[in-house]
Amino acid sequence: MTAMAAEIRPIIWRKGRLLLLDQRKLPAHEVWVECRGARSTARAIRSMVVRGAPAIGVAAAYGMAAEAARFRPARIRQDFERAAGLLLAARPTAVNLAWALDRMGAVLVAAGSAPGSAAGRDRVARLMRAEAAAIHHEDVASNRRLGEHGAPLLVRAGGVMTHCNAGALATAGYGTALGVIRSAWERGTRFDVFATETRPYLQGARLTAWELTKLRIPVTLLTDSGVGSLMQGGRVAAVVVGTDRTAANGDVANKVGTYPIAVLAKRHGVPFYVAAPTASIDLGCSSGSDIPIEQREAAEVTRLAGREIATPGVRVLNPAFDVTPAELVTAIITEAGVVKDNFKAGLARAVKRAQGARRAGR
Amino acid sequence: MTAMAAEIRPIIWRKGRLLLLDQRKLPAHEVWVECRGARSTARAIRSMVVRGAPAIGVAAAYGMAAEAARFRPARIRQDFERAAGLLLAARPTAVNLAWALDRMGAVLVAAGSAPGSAAGRDRVARLMRAEAAAIHHEDVASNRRLGEHGAPLLVRAGGVMTHCNAGALATAGYGTALGVIRSAWERGTRFDVFATETRPYLQGARLTAWELTKLRIPVTLLTDSGVGSLMQGGRVAAVVVGTDRTAANGDVANKVGTYPIAVLAKRHGVPFYVAAPTASIDLGCSSGSDIPIEQREAAEVTRLAGREIATPGVRVLNPAFDVTPAELVTAIITEAGVVKDNFKAGLARAVKRAQGARRAGR
Repeated sequence: MTAMAAEIRPIIWRKGRLLLLDQRKLPAHEVWVECRGARSTARAIRSMVVRGAPAIGVAAAYGMAAEAARFRPARIRQDFERAAGLLLAARPTAVNLAWALDRMGAVLVAAGSAPGSAAGRDRVARLMRAEAAAIHHEDVASNRRLGEHGAPLLVRAGGVMTHCNAGALATAGYGTALGVIRSAWERGTRFDVFATETRPYLQGARLTAWELTKLRIPVTLLTDSGVGSLMQGGRVAAVVVGTDRTAANGDVANKVGTYPIAVLAKRHGVPFYVAAPTASIDLGCSSGSDIPIEQREAAEVTRLAGREIATPGVRVLNPAFDVTPAELVTAIITEAGVVKDNFKAGLARAVKRAQGARRAGR
Repeated sequence: MTAMAAEIRPIIWRKGRLLLLDQRKLPAHEVWVECRGARSTARAIRSMVVRGAPAIGVAAAYGMAAEAARFRPARIRQDFERAAGLLLAARPTAVNLAWALDRMGAVLVAAGSAPGSAAGRDRVARLMRAEAAAIHHEDVASNRRLGEHGAPLLVRAGGVMTHCNAGALATAGYGTALGVIRSAWERGTRFDVFATETRPYLQGARLTAWELTKLRIPVTLLTDSGVGSLMQGGRVAAVVVGTDRTAANGDVANKVGTYPIAVLAKRHGVPFYVAAPTASIDLGCSSGSDIPIEQREAAEVTRLAGREIATPGVRVLNPAFDVTPAELVTAIITEAGVVKDNFKAGLARAVKRAQGARRAGR
């Protein structure tokens, strides 16, 4: 099958080391970056070697597993906390990072009172490797379920628009928003995909266009500014995006530029769908105003491919994300079902169902 | 005065030749391109050596004046028509091109029945040089008046947002949207300017930021996608943009991305102003749907500074402009006054007043 042949796996665990496909170099070069512990993994996350909320959750779990082999037997908890702090600080907006580290912390707790021996430390490290691998495999499986839940929503004739990259590269594989798109495509639904280039990092131009080309799903690239005229022309039947953190009330933090697309979709009567694995739903955030928004450096905007592209010395605002209020969201697609209307109750139920399924799966 | 010292003149006529400041090379390099006739001027317009609706009108007038020196004495009208066709085809959306050529054509008519001698041709060429210079000087003067009319609108505290470049570089000097901004600044009103980078051509990052920096008006650059979160944060008190063609009903064609900004401004209660010299108002277009929208080549989106920045071979949509419906426009600022509410009557009156002022000025 074409789709299977093209499967993209951006995160690999091999012989105690984490290998990350360097997404800064795609699509021109396929380079792998090796991480041997928490510090190098945090650096890779901060510098966007790996990006996308689910992917950085999986990477952080493996980074911690790699680190665990070096925990000092008498200081396992302290070493864990220090490593978790490093990883958590790498990027503030996506909640998957905290979610994955919480699961790794639970492994430590389950391992019982800190075993002060090298053998005890090795056992913790083994358990952490297993938990990271579980998070990894669950992510792919949950993306596939999410895709199946979302696919029936893409039935109207016309184009499907997506922003940034919520594909296999943004996850452990398969993708969230692109997972919905490919799941619909695999069912035989036919449409064009419109991908925004997604400045400043060009995830759409470099990554989404690349993934869809590999999957042989027709994709058309446009600048972020082109969304309005495309919708005016009636060429967009649905929008599907991912999310870095969704609040309990359904407010959605996602790549900057998502909110303007949602506002335009509302104006043009285009349904606006968010593909949100439950790991990216933060019931502890009551609304979007509780979600920290990462501000990134000016050079991402003023330099490209090593060249200055702006007026030297100009001041820059470079927020990585924005928040789309729940009122603009038609439905939130999770691996535990599609949530509409009453987001507060529905998201809480979805998270509970997913947790139950996870426990049952063990 | 600082502002005077920094005056930017992107179009110069010298010894029968048109010199254009190459805006593709700014701000890194100040290179001048010489045009000796209609063909080279059309090429410069098409390839964006010179851009901005008023500027391409002035450039086309000078291009025709340069060409006029080479008209064949017995075929002045045919040679004029051929040259006008070349220039008109260079870019379809901005109406200033047609407007300027109409004025040059009127010179030919006024010169009387085609004089079939070299001396007659030279007289036509002289008259055309004079008309082009008049268009040039009128443009600067009309921008200044437009700026004075618009300046009182920028009184609310907070930032002023602009898109693309409607500054001195987009005109014969001074600017339209930036003319309003600098006129308000010269009156002592203080604010920050937010400039969108304006993909794919980066007029905001390269040209608007450069002009405002020269004028010492504080400017902050953001990606086109950042407009939504900036408005959510309450940091934009007004939007001022230029226009390439405004229809009789107040629908505004301007750089792609303008319409999304107008939609966001409406949602956030931010006034949305359009700086429209009457030369860019096309009473012959009853609404925006009559305005032709130029589609530009894919490479503008997929290449930057000679580097591939997108997935190879991806299909691209690259409309240069979009149309903002009049209902989203708070006011249209012309050199003959500010038009609000009833755009149809108001724009017709403004065009008439400007024509009257021009006749009176001769």
